[in-house]
Amino acid sequence: MENINTKKVILASRSPRRQYLLKGLGIEFEVWVKNDVDEQYPSHLSCEEIPVFLARRKAQTFTDKLRNNHLLITADTIVWCEEQVIDKPKDFHDAREILNKLSGNKHLVITGVCIKTLEKEVSFFASTDVYFSNLANQEIEYYLEKCKPYDKAGAYGIQEWIGYIGIEKIEGSYFNVMGLPVQRLYSELKKF
Amino acid sequence: MENINTKKVILASRSPRRQYLLKGLGIEFEVWVKNDVDEQYPSHLSCEEIPVFLARRKAQTFTDKLRNNHLLITADTIVWCEEQVIDKPKDFHDAREILNKLSGNKHLVITGVCIKTLEKEVSFFASTDVYFSNLANQEIEYYLEKCKPYDKAGAYGIQEWIGYIGIEKIEGSYFNVMGLPVQRLYSELKKF
Repeated sequence: MENINTKKVILASRSPRRQYLLKGLGIEFEVWVKNDVDEQYPSHLSCEEIPVFLARRKAQTFTDKLRNNHLLITADTIVWCEEQVIDKPKDFHDAREILNKLSGNKHLVITGVCIKTLEKEVSFFASTDVYFSNLANQEIEYYLEKCKPYDKAGAYGIQEWIGYIGIEKIEGSYFNVMGLPVQRLYSELKKF
Repeated sequence: MENINTKKVILASRSPRRQYLLKGLGIEFEVWVKNDVDEQYPSHLSCEEIPVFLARRKAQTFTDKLRNNHLLITADTIVWCEEQVIDKPKDFHDAREILNKLSGNKHLVITGVCIKTLEKEVSFFASTDVYFSNLANQEIEYYLEKCKPYDKAGAYGIQEWIGYIGIEKIEGSYFNVMGLPVQRLYSELKKF
């Protein structure tokens, strides 16, 4: 990636999973975070447009901090099931309801990514189909007690116990389900 | 998994990835290893039959060590590309040739698993389609130097750098590509 070697890469995300995944690409980067990014979006957007819209908005909020040699990466991940966005759970009860909905069902995990410098902006999404087996109530409750997935859209982490025992198959990128489609990001950075 | 709670689970595999994955299911187990298991198989077997045949043979080699309360798990993983089994690479040159073959191509990773007690034996397989992007020569060489994947069928680990930058998508279980289809194993253990 000679083309971005002169840039200082910045990942604007507080997600430890995104930081871990970007490290896996072998890229050096700095982390920036900001509180209170508005996560509303226009209601006419399709499920693929929503996370791209939010990733671009996150990038915009950093515009005045960007310098010539900066390359900013932002991302947003949504879970989409039965024609609805599944948010982060509010509490135990909500998380249990979400996992009951995903149980025995297919959902989509869509991550929007924005790469931004002062001169250029590229955004894209990656989508993965995820198929859960039928989860027993005691499996859901054991997982919620043990892993407390309240910071996760869809109330689960694919790399956690529930992913081991409950995910029958996926179609698409595994790392995208964790929060960052690293292969696609790598290929976009090479072209950037 | 009340039905296997009275059993002492044994994983007969020296693969650190299989040990890691079985731990992820939250199961307590012991590891047994044996040198020089014959890995030949009859040439008429289909690609799905090969790893099941080898997993069963591995299980058989432990028969005289099995006690009443033991539950033995064995597994074998093969990589199948262009109608051929892709073995573990013999050396750097061979590994480079394998990765060149997988580059820009689809292959299958098939794991056969055998669960065995003194009274009962169950075996099954799981298959995942893996799609590599076009890998550059310097990416292949960088990966081989860095990760030395000589213990891995297909000369790569999906959880390593090459998986991050090179795997566009999969269809099936991600953990199966790492060496053990944990969701399917969990469901078979519940029924065992």
